[in-house]
Amino acid sequence: MPLVNIKIAKDNVSAEKKAELIKGATQLLVDVLGKNPQTTVVIIEEVDTDNWGIGGISVTERRKQGL
Amino acid sequence: MPLVNIKIAKDNVSAEKKAELIKGATQLLVDVLGKNPQTTVVIIEEVDTDNWGIGGISVTERRKQGL
Amino acid sequence: MPLVNIKIAKDNVSAEKKAELIKGATQLLVDVLGKNPQTTVVIIEEVDTDNWGIGGISVTERRKQGL
Amino acid sequence: MPLVNIKIAKDNVSAEKKAELIKGATQLLVDVLGKNPQTTVVIIEEVDTDNWGIGGISVTERRKQGL
Amino acid sequence: MPLVNIKIAKDNVSAEKKAELIKGATQLLVDVLGKNPQTTVVIIEEVDTDNWGIGGISVTERRKQGL
Amino acid sequence: MPLVNIKIAKDNVSAEKKAELIKGATQLLVDVLGKNPQTTVVIIEEVDTDNWGIGGISVTERRKQGL
Repeated sequence: MPLVNIKIAKDNVSAEKKAELIKGATQLLVDVLGKNPQTTVVIIEEVDTDNWGIGGISVTERRKQGL
Repeated sequence: MPLVNIKIAKDNVSAEKKAELIKGATQLLVDVLGKNPQTTVVIIEEVDTDNWGIGGISVTERRKQGL
Repeated sequence: MPLVNIKIAKDNVSAEKKAELIKGATQLLVDVLGKNPQTTVVIIEEVDTDNWGIGGISVTERRKQGL
Repeated sequence: MPLVNIKIAKDNVSAEKKAELIKGATQLLVDVLGKNPQTTVVIIEEVDTDNWGIGGISVTERRKQGL
Repeated sequence: MPLVNIKIAKDNVSAEKKAELIKGATQLLVDVLGKNPQTTVVIIEEVDTDNWGIGGISVTERRKQGL
Repeated sequence: MPLVNIKIAKDNVSAEKKAELIKGATQLLVDVLGKNPQTTVVIIEEVDTDNWGIGGISVTERRKQGL
């Protein structure tokens, strides 16, 4: 029954890469905690780089500055 | 003051259906816990089927396979 | 596959009341969107009243003031 | 290491305003709890007004009614 | 900068198992998307089995029924 | 109507400090976006240091290592 929520920057991540994240996160719960994969849910949320900040600076701005 | 967050697959759900979800979830908190509807907040998040997986497989792929 | 997350104040809500919330939220998704109840997940989070604020004032304080 | 998640209605908020939110939320954690700003993360989520309800009524509808 | 949130049932999961989840989820983001592990954050939330439901029935009750 | 969710490590943060976070986060939304403080909600979640990781290492372990 685990739920995994993965937030990443919106960077045109392909459906194939997303499928790998879903598969890998599900397998992690199986391997570490013996969870049933059939009831493991993974959700990926893509966040605009204007909407994400670290160190008080947006990711958009950080990339411009090469941080 | 309750907060209800509902995540559903992005399937062109109409504003009318969303309004029903908002109304129904609010009423549920009133009925079960006697909460004040005026301060009950409902948020609906629609998740792309590529970004949602169960059993290690994305919902996009599950639908293709008829799962 | 819907996920419902309900945040309420931590007020010694009984397991029976929680079961009613789980049942009711699941039924809402069935009724409004025709979702499969077997894959509908509901999570209830109970938040300490010191940790929840509205109008810039914690719920603990609001209750003291009769707000 | 704090994480701040800010959900606001989707109202064409500018990147400048978002940058102010990121800066201000980060500074708040520094000022109140002495947290390291370099590891403070802020995420802003913009929610469609059809998808957000209070008092059992969507924000879209509330605005129409002047609530 | 990815954030991974893992919700599991509260079952006396050991700190060692949690450390494995943290390590594995971080590595997944490195392997699939080439993310920097130093800025990858993982949070594990443990949910009481009374507070988690599937199919309209709490996990506490499901376990009693052997579901 | 904004919602602010602040996740911090569980470190015996006092009710007074939490009240400052609630007040400050609410004021931030007023100052930057002109939001109504009366409908601004702030929730603080305290996360056990075993349950929070950065760089693939739990905060418990990071503190032991002086990271």
